[in-house]
Order: sequence, then structure tokens, then C-alpha cells
Amino acid sequence: MNFAELINKKKKGLALSKEEIDYLIAGFVSNEIKDYQMSAMSMAIYFKGMNSLETSNLTGAMVNSGKTYDLKAVSGFKVDKHSTGGVGDKTSLIYAPLVASFGLKVAKLSGRGLGQTGGTIDKLESCPGWTGEVSEAKFEEIVNKVGMSIISQSGEIVPADKKLYALRDVTGTVDSIPLIASSIMSKKLAIAGNGIILDVKMGSGAFMETIEQATLLAQTMVEIGKNHNRNIAAMITDMDKPLGRQIGNANEVREAYETLLGKGPADLVELTETAVGITLLQAKLFKDLPAAKLAARQRLVSGEAAPILKQFINAQGGDFGVIENYDKNFITKNKIEVLASKSGNVRYCDTDRLGLLAMKIGAGRATKEDSIDYAAGISLNKGSGEYVKAGEVVMTLMTNKPIVSDFTASAEMTFEIVDKEFHEPVIIKIISDLKID
Amino acid sequence: MNFAELINKKKKGLALSKEEIDYLIAGFVSNEIKDYQMSAMSMAIYFKGMNSLETSNLTGAMVNSGKTYDLKAVSGFKVDKHSTGGVGDKTSLIYAPLVASFGLKVAKLSGRGLGQTGGTIDKLESCPGWTGEVSEAKFEEIVNKVGMSIISQSGEIVPADKKLYALRDVTGTVDSIPLIASSIMSKKLAIAGNGIILDVKMGSGAFMETIEQATLLAQTMVEIGKNHNRNIAAMITDMDKPLGRQIGNANEVREAYETLLGKGPADLVELTETAVGITLLQAKLFKDLPAAKLAARQRLVSGEAAPILKQFINAQGGDFGVIENYDKNFITKNKIEVLASKSGNVRYCDTDRLGLLAMKIGAGRATKEDSIDYAAGISLNKGSGEYVKAGEVVMTLMTNKPIVSDFTASAEMTFEIVDKEFHEPVIIKIISDLKID
Repeated sequence: MNFAELINKKKKGLALSKEEIDYLIAGFVSNEIKDYQMSAMSMAIYFKGMNSLETSNLTGAMVNSGKTYDLKAVSGFKVDKHSTGGVGDKTSLIYAPLVASFGLKVAKLSGRGLGQTGGTIDKLESCPGWTGEVSEAKFEEIVNKVGMSIISQSGEIVPADKKLYALRDVTGTVDSIPLIASSIMSKKLAIAGNGIILDVKMGSGAFMETIEQATLLAQTMVEIGKNHNRNIAAMITDMDKPLGRQIGNANEVREAYETLLGKGPADLVELTETAVGITLLQAKLFKDLPAAKLAARQRLVSGEAAPILKQFINAQGGDFGVIENYDKNFITKNKIEVLASKSGNVRYCDTDRLGLLAMKIGAGRATKEDSIDYAAGISLNKGSGEYVKAGEVVMTLMTNKPIVSDFTASAEMTFEIVDKEFHEPVIIKIISDLKID
Repeated sequence: MNFAELINKKKKGLALSKEEIDYLIAGFVSNEIKDYQMSAMSMAIYFKGMNSLETSNLTGAMVNSGKTYDLKAVSGFKVDKHSTGGVGDKTSLIYAPLVASFGLKVAKLSGRGLGQTGGTIDKLESCPGWTGEVSEAKFEEIVNKVGMSIISQSGEIVPADKKLYALRDVTGTVDSIPLIASSIMSKKLAIAGNGIILDVKMGSGAFMETIEQATLLAQTMVEIGKNHNRNIAAMITDMDKPLGRQIGNANEVREAYETLLGKGPADLVELTETAVGITLLQAKLFKDLPAAKLAARQRLVSGEAAPILKQFINAQGGDFGVIENYDKNFITKNKIEVLASKSGNVRYCDTDRLGLLAMKIGAGRATKEDSIDYAAGISLNKGSGEYVKAGEVVMTLMTNKPIVSDFTASAEMTFEIVDKEFHEPVIIKIISDLKID
């Protein structure tokens, strides 16, 4: 076997065998196959694609390049949720305690944010002392005891993906569905589990801009999961508008906690209930999605899952008290109120820009080296579709940075005020073999 | 301008501007654009192509990456011939003296052979003392005095092509028409000139295997030449069979000389006359191709151009006497006669294998470091379409290597003996704006 044969096959659009893909990935990691060869292969894959089996085999080869978690010490039905990344997306922090309250186990690896997209690890670090650097034994222990744990995805996980992604990033080969799908799924499959629910974001604040692209990506990931014996489903959800009312770090943890106490915004509640409902179906705890969602809703109303979030944060060294006394602990020098220029219904129209603005005012990082201001963020006083009177506050920017006029100007470009009332559902589509209606 | 913009344009099939192509090539040569980026770009070009203007601009950018020859000291109409490389192709050694005899000037850069394809420089080195390493001033002096000179293409010529070709070779991006055409033409355009005749080989002993591929390559190169103000035409010629009767080095020089003395094989004569004829039309010395070809034929019959080959070899330090006394100077230990197993018409059917066999018995090199045995080679006792009786000699292998049975077995696979008489023309197609009929 040699690289020349493989690239010639892929150029013709032929499928690579499992052995060929294993050779490709092992060779790339060991540097026997050079960067310039792998970038040519990535471009050939961009143009010629990969079939379902190839994509699954690519994912498997990447998983095998690094450390995996077998979770043998964890008993029960193990579930995971993954979002392709959006603005204001704190769903995992609600989902995990909620499914744990049903006796399921959430053992989750998460990443940090970059650019307009926040990361769960960053959000959790707004609780002083909390750490995502936990030994495997301790991780399993917390999952068994609390029902959930979220730890940092270490560099030992799927090194092939890390190397390949860095190369794709500088060679114009990021936007290939099989490469995106295998990259995401390799990190999910590195950890043992039974059920997976994927949240594929779509719209201006997401990587996939059309329903066709998002559906194709979701289907591809679902196929990979099935081929690796996971019970897997995907939701395609709206990222033309931000999710919930809070964008940042500590404010997002607070919003997650309040949602667990039955006081969450409708879109965030709907998305979380659907993700939890699908997971409960995968675990065969309910027989159809409406029943499962109703059960999830009841637990949000009763607030009985909220303590689990606190227990989990405490178990990993975090002080949750800062969130309970949020107003004392997360004060920013500046609060900029962005006002409505006229009366009407607020329509968010540039979520990408909103995410970048949150980053600029301190809540995110432009480069991996930047540090985060946990108190910085954006609070949406008016949600999507909500009526606002001229002069009322639409959103508030909380920042410790010096105020520059650019902040308000940027904020004003992220929404418009329209005459017509509208309601856009957060869940666009569900891709699943389960009984969802 | 940055690489990401350029690769995104090319992925969409958009044309790159001259400025973008200049940036790409200059950046690649200076290592600002990395190998892995250029290989991804090459693969995108493989799939999306380049239009005529882009390909011309790419060629120009490559020419500008290195040394060029302006030939200001050379007077007269300057012409060049290029072959895409074939087995037994010694046409340049006949073409150059012949057009020089008409007062035209041939200032030519040539390369060495590799694999199944011989190189003009190697062939000329079979005359002891001959060198292709000649100063620019001396080169121009010889062209002015003798009418022709052929020198080695130095590493200073088109370094961008050298670097790009090495990368394409290991990344599966060799077989892209715009990249092949710009690679070939960059080396032609690095030397000033008026007329160019291209010989695009097609068939089993050539890189282009179909008439469609060969035509596309020829048209692309002609377009590049025109965009760079050259009077240019192309022939597509048959490489399903070897050219002439001799494959090797010294034996090819002798065959060229004998052809100049009116004793050449029909296919080689036909090809040379056509190339010379087109060149004479480019120089406006004749008004149509039949008249120009006839004039060339007359000079072959009279032998009057033959002394020019000798003068040129002498001018660059070579002892031409070895060719004139060939039988004394190029003796091999072994001569293997390959016999006809039955009577019929000889049809060469695997010229690629024939070229590789010549290499194996000492006439070529498998790697750049190998040395050449100038006496080694293959002599075809029977040409393509010629009748042979059972037991007669079809070809003779001349080698100083120990005889292995593999040599004869290989040789036997390069031809078949068929009942039907046939004649296949060597010139398949001419691509030209000139009056060719």
C-alpha cells in the first residue's frame, strides 16, 4: 500500500477500504505520510466525498490514534450530547443534570470556546476552583456518584483529528461534510457510551448555513454513530437567533441553573426538553417523544434536577455560591444599554456578529492564548419576536473594557425591529429512528 | 491577498487574477505559502482547471521565478522544438541542423532522461568531451556561428517549476493539463524566441494516452505560447510504437546523423520533415506546408545539413569521430537477438515497456543518480508494420549487463506478430493557424 495508490483512487471518486484509511491516518500521525500529501487528500475528499462506510472508518481510525475512555467503572445507560456550537448555547449544563435525574449517566468531554462560539469548559470555570482536569478514576467516580461529569478534552484524545484539523484550517479543506462529521464524531466515540444526541446548529451564527447542508452533516454523523454501535439521533436547530437570553460565561451558568429551576426562556426550554426527551427514548424510559418531553418539563418545573448541577460543580472543586449570589460576584465596570429606535418586534438577524461582539467585550477569545472575563457578556432584555417600545432596552452589554462607540454600533447591527409578529421554532428538524411523534 | 482567499476562489472554480497567481508562485518559492497549501491548490486545480489566461499567467509567473535567456546577441529568426518525451525520439538532433541549414537559429535548452524516456543531453554526451554546460556568451556565439546549440537546462531556470513538480509528483497532482502545460511551457519561454513547434506524444509510450487528452494539452500549450507572443504550433504524434529504429544514446545519435544523410527510417523522416516544415512556415520562408516539407526532404536527400550536427558537437567539445566509427567505439559484451515465433507483420504494442527495457539494459536511468552506458540500447531490425519470417530477428538488445532471461521475455512482450498488413501514420494531428494543406 502506498499514498500514490490511495490518492489516485480518491481522485477517481472510488471508495477507500478500511485498511487503506487505517494506513492513511496511522501514516499521517507518524509523519510517514506528509502534510502536503494529506492536504492533497483532504482536497480530493472535498471534491469527491466519502461514502458512509468510509466516513465511519475514517472516524474509527482517528479514534484509535489516541487515548480512549472505556468507562468500565461506570454503571448504567451512558449518554452524551454534542452541539456543533452556537451563540448562547448552554444546553449541556441543563441537559446533563436533567437526564442524570432520571438515573442516566453523562460522562462528557468538552472543549473551550474560540471566536464567536463559547465553550462549556470556559463557562464552568466561572465558578472559582472548578477544574476540568480530572483523572480518569475520579471522572468515573463523579459520574457514578453525581450522575454526570464534564471534563476537558485533553490533547491525548484523537491526536489525528488535532493534526488534521490544523492542516485543513490552512489549506481550504475545512468545509467538507465527511471531514467535519468524522472530526466531531471521533471526539464523541473516544468515550464509551450508549446514547448520543447531536444538536446541529444552522443559520447565521452557525457553520452550516442551509437546511440542506445541516441535514447532510446530521445524517452523516448519525450514520457514523450507528456504524459504531451507538443509539444516536440528531436535531437541527435554529442559530439565526441566539439561544436563551444570556451570552457569556457566568451569566450563562446562571441562566442554565434558573432553567433547571423552571425559570428558563422558552427557546432554551424547548431545545433542552427535546434533547432530553430523545435521550430518554434512547434509554427506553418512555415510549414516545411527547411523553418523554412532558416528563422532562415536569422536572424543570419542580426544580428537582437543579441540585445535580451544583453537586457536579462542587465535586470538581468549584464554588457554586458565586452563581447563587451572582449580582455580588460578577460586576462589570460598564453596562451599555442598547435601545430600540422604534416600536415593534425584535428580530435578531446577525447572530454571528453578536457572538463576535460578546468575544470583543471580554467574554470570549480571539486566539487560543487570550484570557476570558467571566463577568463580561450580553444580556438580551428582549428575546426574538418580543415586542419592544421605542426607547426601551433591547440588550445590555456588560464589560470591563473601556467603552468604544463601536460596541453599540455593532450591537445595533445584530437586530432589526419589524412590524409583523412572528414566531420561529428553535427545533427545525429531528433525524432519528425513534418514535418522535 | 492571502492564501485562504485564493483557495476558496479556486474551489468554487473561479479564475485567479494575474496578481493572485504572481502572489501564489512568489509565495511558494519564498516558502511563505507552504508545501501543504500548494498541494491543496494543485488538487483544486486538478478538479476545477484553469482557463487559458490563468494558465498563461501561471506560466509567466514560473518563468519569472528564475534565470531567463534574452538571446539579444543572436540575430535572425529563433526557433525551438519541444517533445513531451517518447521512446527513440532523437528528432531534435535532426530538426536543429536542418532548420539551421535554412538560416534559422536554434538555441535550445534540453534535459536528461529518466525512466523510459531518453534525454537529448544524455544522447549528446555519448560523444566524448561534449558538454551541455556552456556559458551564456559561448552559447550565443555557437548559435550565431553554427546556427544551433543545445545546452543543459540549469537549476537556475524556472525554480518554481522544479519545486512544484517535485510536490505534484508525491501528491497525486501530476495529471492536470494546466499544470503540465505550464510546466513544459515555462521552460520554453525562459529562453527568448520567435517560433516554437511542439510534439505532443500520444499512446502507450507517452504520458497522454488518448487523442482527447493529447489535443487538450497541445491546445493549452499553444494558447500559452500565443499569449506570450510566440508563433507556435503543435503536432500530435503516435507513441504507440517507438520512433525510428534505434533506442539508446550513441545509436540514436548515429541514426540522427544517418537521417541527415538521407538514410533515415520513414517515420522519423516524416516527423522531422513536418516539424521542420511548420518551422519554415513560421519563419515565412515557404507559403504552405507541402512546399516546406519538400524543401526539408530535399536537404535530407542531399545530406547538406549533416555537417551542422558535427560542427555543433565539435563546438561544444565533443568528438564526433566516435559516431562516424560507431562499430569500433560502441561495442557491448552482449547482443541478444529477439526472434519472431511466427511469420507475419510486426506490431509494437507496448512502447512503455520497450523504453523501460532500454533503461534496464543500461541505456537509461531509474533514478537521477544512475549513470548511463552510451553503447547500450535496442536496435529494431524490423520496424512497425514490417513483415518478418518465423525465426528472423525482430530486435537486438545491446548490453554490457549480464544476460538475464527477463530481458528476452520483456522484449517479447513489446510486440506481436499479426496477419493483417497495416500502416499507421506517425503524425496524428496538427494544431496550427498556418497553412498546413
